[in-house]
Amino acid sequence: MITLLTDFGWKDGYPGIMKGVISSIHPQAQIVDISHEIPPQHVLEGALTIGRAYPYFPADTIHVMVVDPGVGTSRRPIAARIGQYYYVCPDNGLITIPYQSAGMHQEQVEIVHLNQPQFWLPNPSTTFHGRDIFSPVAAHLALGIPLEELGIPVHDPILLDIPQPTRQNQAWHAQIIHIDRFGNLGINLSRTQILSSRVCITIKDHIITDISPTFGSHPPGSLVAIWDSSGYLSLCIVNGSATEILSVGLLDPVLVEEQ
Amino acid sequence: MITLLTDFGWKDGYPGIMKGVISSIHPQAQIVDISHEIPPQHVLEGALTIGRAYPYFPADTIHVMVVDPGVGTSRRPIAARIGQYYYVCPDNGLITIPYQSAGMHQEQVEIVHLNQPQFWLPNPSTTFHGRDIFSPVAAHLALGIPLEELGIPVHDPILLDIPQPTRQNQAWHAQIIHIDRFGNLGINLSRTQILSSRVCITIKDHIITDISPTFGSHPPGSLVAIWDSSGYLSLCIVNGSATEILSVGLLDPVLVEEQ
Amino acid sequence: MITLLTDFGWKDGYPGIMKGVISSIHPQAQIVDISHEIPPQHVLEGALTIGRAYPYFPADTIHVMVVDPGVGTSRRPIAARIGQYYYVCPDNGLITIPYQSAGMHQEQVEIVHLNQPQFWLPNPSTTFHGRDIFSPVAAHLALGIPLEELGIPVHDPILLDIPQPTRQNQAWHAQIIHIDRFGNLGINLSRTQILSSRVCITIKDHIITDISPTFGSHPPGSLVAIWDSSGYLSLCIVNGSATEILSVGLLDPVLVEEQ
Repeated sequence: MITLLTDFGWKDGYPGIMKGVISSIHPQAQIVDISHEIPPQHVLEGALTIGRAYPYFPADTIHVMVVDPGVGTSRRPIAARIGQYYYVCPDNGLITIPYQSAGMHQEQVEIVHLNQPQFWLPNPSTTFHGRDIFSPVAAHLALGIPLEELGIPVHDPILLDIPQPTRQNQAWHAQIIHIDRFGNLGINLSRTQILSSRVCITIKDHIITDISPTFGSHPPGSLVAIWDSSGYLSLCIVNGSATEILSVGLLDPVLVEEQ
Repeated sequence: MITLLTDFGWKDGYPGIMKGVISSIHPQAQIVDISHEIPPQHVLEGALTIGRAYPYFPADTIHVMVVDPGVGTSRRPIAARIGQYYYVCPDNGLITIPYQSAGMHQEQVEIVHLNQPQFWLPNPSTTFHGRDIFSPVAAHLALGIPLEELGIPVHDPILLDIPQPTRQNQAWHAQIIHIDRFGNLGINLSRTQILSSRVCITIKDHIITDISPTFGSHPPGSLVAIWDSSGYLSLCIVNGSATEILSVGLLDPVLVEEQ
Repeated sequence: MITLLTDFGWKDGYPGIMKGVISSIHPQAQIVDISHEIPPQHVLEGALTIGRAYPYFPADTIHVMVVDPGVGTSRRPIAARIGQYYYVCPDNGLITIPYQSAGMHQEQVEIVHLNQPQFWLPNPSTTFHGRDIFSPVAAHLALGIPLEELGIPVHDPILLDIPQPTRQNQAWHAQIIHIDRFGNLGINLSRTQILSSRVCITIKDHIITDISPTFGSHPPGSLVAIWDSSGYLSLCIVNGSATEILSVGLLDPVLVEEQ
């Protein structure tokens, strides 16, 4: 199985072209879209999106990720084996979350700098490596070509500085790191980081004094805090958009005081 | 074959995660997207969308539908066999149209309340049952697990009150129940409900005095009435958007007088 | 393999319905979306989009294209073999680019007017031939029904007048013919049409005096000219939207002077 995550959008047909390239090399490949609506060139959002998705795929899935503001420059194209998955992408930090998770769990990591053009389309462009390099490499990986034949080892992949909450006294200074389609605010604070059962959450001039089991149990329009489906704090307006109603955006601060 | 219909949108990667979960359990499952752009929490629009789509799929297709404002509350997760299709969704009325159609055609209906966690992901969240309950249940159904092993019988599924036209004297008081991407207005009046060959249709201060065989035969900008591809009345601006040009929206009234 | 390119959008579920129809006739068909976000009824943009995509698919791929303002009128539904691909679409010019390319390369072209309803859904509507005619015909083609059984020969397909640059003295008068998701401007001038290594490009009151190997090598906000991944001139704002920042749109003029 091969997944695609890009900032290409649907309208121009670029994801379809990638599937054509993959299927031309490997007709039986099963291809799944994760997202093509990462905001243009927003590498951090791409990294966070694959971070939410990758654990739910079968072992040996090949995740192709193309959010690539540096396409055509000297930034390296890479392929990686991290834990039980493969990744094919530019070396710009898209692999940060599975890479750091593998470090914490002592999982295998092997990364190569793609430098073997026989596994690419001929005459690759300088602007569409998703088509010319990453898709054909993914198809060859799926056909069984070993990682080490695709390039030379990389030991210093670029990693993103994923925003982390900081602790001062009894309080976490956290941030909004995801806003989903519903306008729910994903906060970079995990359930495992909260020890007390009583908290006071401040976002702008709003205060929430408990974490609910689900938002469905509150009346429409309520501002509620829940643990989301990844185990992170999420602030939601029931049946509404928290980002619009609170007028907040990515990286805005959230204070969580334990009591 | 498994289909997905949700209000998740494409950007956050949630439909891709559902496909990962399904493929992890049933690697050969063939998965088709019906829509992920149901307006957030708009159960009626989800029900109407599956109502247009379901008859065109092969027998035994499993339709997974997640428009789920009550996720995490006591609303029941269900799976159903209705006629020749399966449905896996929250018990909030998404199945209304195939359910009522089965009633009219004396087709088999069997519904269960999903209460067997061995067919779910471990530790299901309270906010993403599409990932944790509905996708794994659909995958197990596709693998051949019988419906009755997935839960206990339900005899009182929640059904929506689909807006219906009313008849007064010689006239139908109908409503706009669908606005498609082109801005065409879908009206809840079927070809089978009109006896006369001469009608007078009033929408706001516009009058249309006949039903055309197709909109392509009128000049651009014309307001025309046609029978749409499902046999329902549709009001269209040729090469334009009727919803914008007439400034009308969902559930606005349309009067159809037979003459 | 069958691809779909339409102006249906995702929200109403129409592309999913087409997949249901195809799979009902040919359960093993592999279906790939090229785009469903062609602007409504914009046949030229559909033609340009398939023009960029078709060469990247495996031989014998069947491209189904539905941008169809004349649906239900006397415009012909057609199927074609052009070079190594099949096309199924209305006869309105969607096949222009592969057709003209086949002419230049002396490739085989065979086109039929679809007039054999036994290969359609019963009782086709006048408004959704994508569902009722084009999808079932594509499924039958994929099952091996020969083109000549599907209809009668067509020797005068409708072709679009694709905007072409004109040459005056040392200068090309070219046009914007594509604006992608990033706001990059695709110009209808190919690398093969430029002989000099020195050019002066004028768009509105902006002048660009060289063509860069890639946009990634310039600082964010720069206006750069590159050869895009199809070998055509593209004007881009690095990490920004050229269409927004320059306030230009489709078919706006671009002057390219060779020096």
